[in-house]
Amino acid sequence: MNFTINRSRFIQELQIVQRAISTKTTIPILTGVKIVLTEEGLHLTGSNADISIETFLSTEDEKAQLMIESTGMIVIQARFFGEIVRRLPEDTVTLEVMENHQVLITSGAAQFTVNGLDADNYPHLPVVEEQNQLKIPVHMLTKLIGETVFSVSQHESRPILTGVHFTLSQNKLLAVATDSHRLSQRVIPVENAANDFDIVIPGKSLSELSRSLSDDEEEVEISIMENQVLFKTANMYFYSRLLEGNYPDTNRLIPTSFNTEIAFSVPTFLAAIERASLLSHEGRNNIVRLAIGSDSVVLYGNSPEIGKVEETLVYEKVSGDPLEISFNPDYMKDALRAFGDMSITIRFISPIRPFTLEPTEGGQSFIQLITPVRTN
Amino acid sequence: MNFTINRSRFIQELQIVQRAISTKTTIPILTGVKIVLTEEGLHLTGSNADISIETFLSTEDEKAQLMIESTGMIVIQARFFGEIVRRLPEDTVTLEVMENHQVLITSGAAQFTVNGLDADNYPHLPVVEEQNQLKIPVHMLTKLIGETVFSVSQHESRPILTGVHFTLSQNKLLAVATDSHRLSQRVIPVENAANDFDIVIPGKSLSELSRSLSDDEEEVEISIMENQVLFKTANMYFYSRLLEGNYPDTNRLIPTSFNTEIAFSVPTFLAAIERASLLSHEGRNNIVRLAIGSDSVVLYGNSPEIGKVEETLVYEKVSGDPLEISFNPDYMKDALRAFGDMSITIRFISPIRPFTLEPTEGGQSFIQLITPVRTN
Repeated sequence: MNFTINRSRFIQELQIVQRAISTKTTIPILTGVKIVLTEEGLHLTGSNADISIETFLSTEDEKAQLMIESTGMIVIQARFFGEIVRRLPEDTVTLEVMENHQVLITSGAAQFTVNGLDADNYPHLPVVEEQNQLKIPVHMLTKLIGETVFSVSQHESRPILTGVHFTLSQNKLLAVATDSHRLSQRVIPVENAANDFDIVIPGKSLSELSRSLSDDEEEVEISIMENQVLFKTANMYFYSRLLEGNYPDTNRLIPTSFNTEIAFSVPTFLAAIERASLLSHEGRNNIVRLAIGSDSVVLYGNSPEIGKVEETLVYEKVSGDPLEISFNPDYMKDALRAFGDMSITIRFISPIRPFTLEPTEGGQSFIQLITPVRTN
Repeated sequence: MNFTINRSRFIQELQIVQRAISTKTTIPILTGVKIVLTEEGLHLTGSNADISIETFLSTEDEKAQLMIESTGMIVIQARFFGEIVRRLPEDTVTLEVMENHQVLITSGAAQFTVNGLDADNYPHLPVVEEQNQLKIPVHMLTKLIGETVFSVSQHESRPILTGVHFTLSQNKLLAVATDSHRLSQRVIPVENAANDFDIVIPGKSLSELSRSLSDDEEEVEISIMENQVLFKTANMYFYSRLLEGNYPDTNRLIPTSFNTEIAFSVPTFLAAIERASLLSHEGRNNIVRLAIGSDSVVLYGNSPEIGKVEETLVYEKVSGDPLEISFNPDYMKDALRAFGDMSITIRFISPIRPFTLEPTEGGQSFIQLITPVRTN
């Protein structure tokens, strides 16, 4: 293998696949980036146990200025390689594989010789079947991930809850995440739907995918395989393993009748929650208390050592029974941030039953549910 | 104490004194900010074992909109207080000291009650004598600190070397720092000099001072006391303790005759050193090797596991004997960064004697010295 390439274009591609590469892996070859050069162009691959990212740079990419002397493949320790390429002096870099998997990296007067690894020992990525594919716009996918992924469990005690549950049926894609204290659910309509599916994708994979997707204009093509899912854009293949096991039935968790309703502007309510949580974070129980009366709504927070806070809240509308309820302000903050700048309606049954948050206008396509904390 | 103040102006002042406040202190009251309100205005103080910062906000400061209901003083836990004030909803905040050192913090509908501490128990700052003062422009002081402070020792085995040695004599201020492997020395002329002095200021204090000085236009007034130094600007008093003990005589360390000289453009040479150090960092000995010949100058770095690098360097001028010398690239990087974008001349005696770096033009007011590493 021997080729010359525009350095900044090459760095762009390296950065994408490096997202999948961890220095903590137990499989040494996965600390490397796999470089495969064919007559068509340059394939880069990075992988860890959970996700794999592959990019392709065509010989027809004008910015890449790819000049092929001879094709071939190699694996190079990713962390160093990235650092080296970033610090080279000239606009282009030449890579040449020598004997014993040594790689000569040349740019101007600087010449590195680094030890590579045999690319034949790099694990193979799953083969994609060209069926069962779903296309959705990138901006819709990243929004859906942002609205749900924070609710996945951070604990491995119930591994299935560390993922987001995706089900496709009747031309609707439903995404649900819950850590058993709170739940986030979003439904989006899809056109030209593929076969129905029911899968659980690790939350960490989705967060990384979201960070890797840059071009909001684009479409992403989703393919489901035996135990993998592939997200394919114009310049990236993003693979994630799927979680095995049955996701619990979450539909029955969402209540349908309520006794108290209150509407808030999200930014106003969020700012008050953030103030109240400053002190609650220091207490043994991280809770704040919301008291909804017929003529005033007050939020309380306190920490025995530091002090206390109370704030009379500005709300848009209130109806139903008076209520005092305590909850973890961090769950509330996460939920509110997922809505952004809009009006939401919070609906309660009682101080001990989960309550829901939904956009005040626009129906039930997005719902957040939080379980309160019993204080007596 | 009861006053109302513009919140963003108050936050500015809080941020300045918070630089001195550590949560790790063993003296509990020093985790607090001391607030003293007189008829003249508001004094804030933050302190740790090494440095103390005091600010003063006059009633005449228009932006502060300071409204005094009653004077007094209190100490408030700094970390929370800063967070609380930052998150309050309105443009102004009212502070009122209640019974038992409780403090009521009000802004719009948000009301915090926090536990304060008796300000009488706060340590007193040293009293400044209005003599032995030296005035220098802020930009000159921050430049001097940046050129020397990185060479102080990070180890407490010789505490005196953790400071920068300042001597004022014959209208010249000399600053020297050394960790016994490398040395940085800068001389600046001073006008209207005060009494001569010879002090050692902790490197950490100087780094913090440098970060706290914002207005380059201003002058800073330096006062030396028994075991403290005060840096005074228009809106800040910055106190640091001095290090006790005798600083070693560093003058004899700087060689005066040389056998090899080479001139480099700093950015070019620095980039090459950064490349070579990528691999040397991984080796057991973090060293790079510079080979100066009559017709070429080459830099080498290597790590047995990763690989090696060699680069033929672009230089401006070379003279004297050929030389091969090895050194720690991190010392070289620090030294080069202190020069910025200019031409420097490096002068060598032999592979085992310290070498010097000086600006190619402009004489001996700034010199860096590095001890090489013996490789055989």
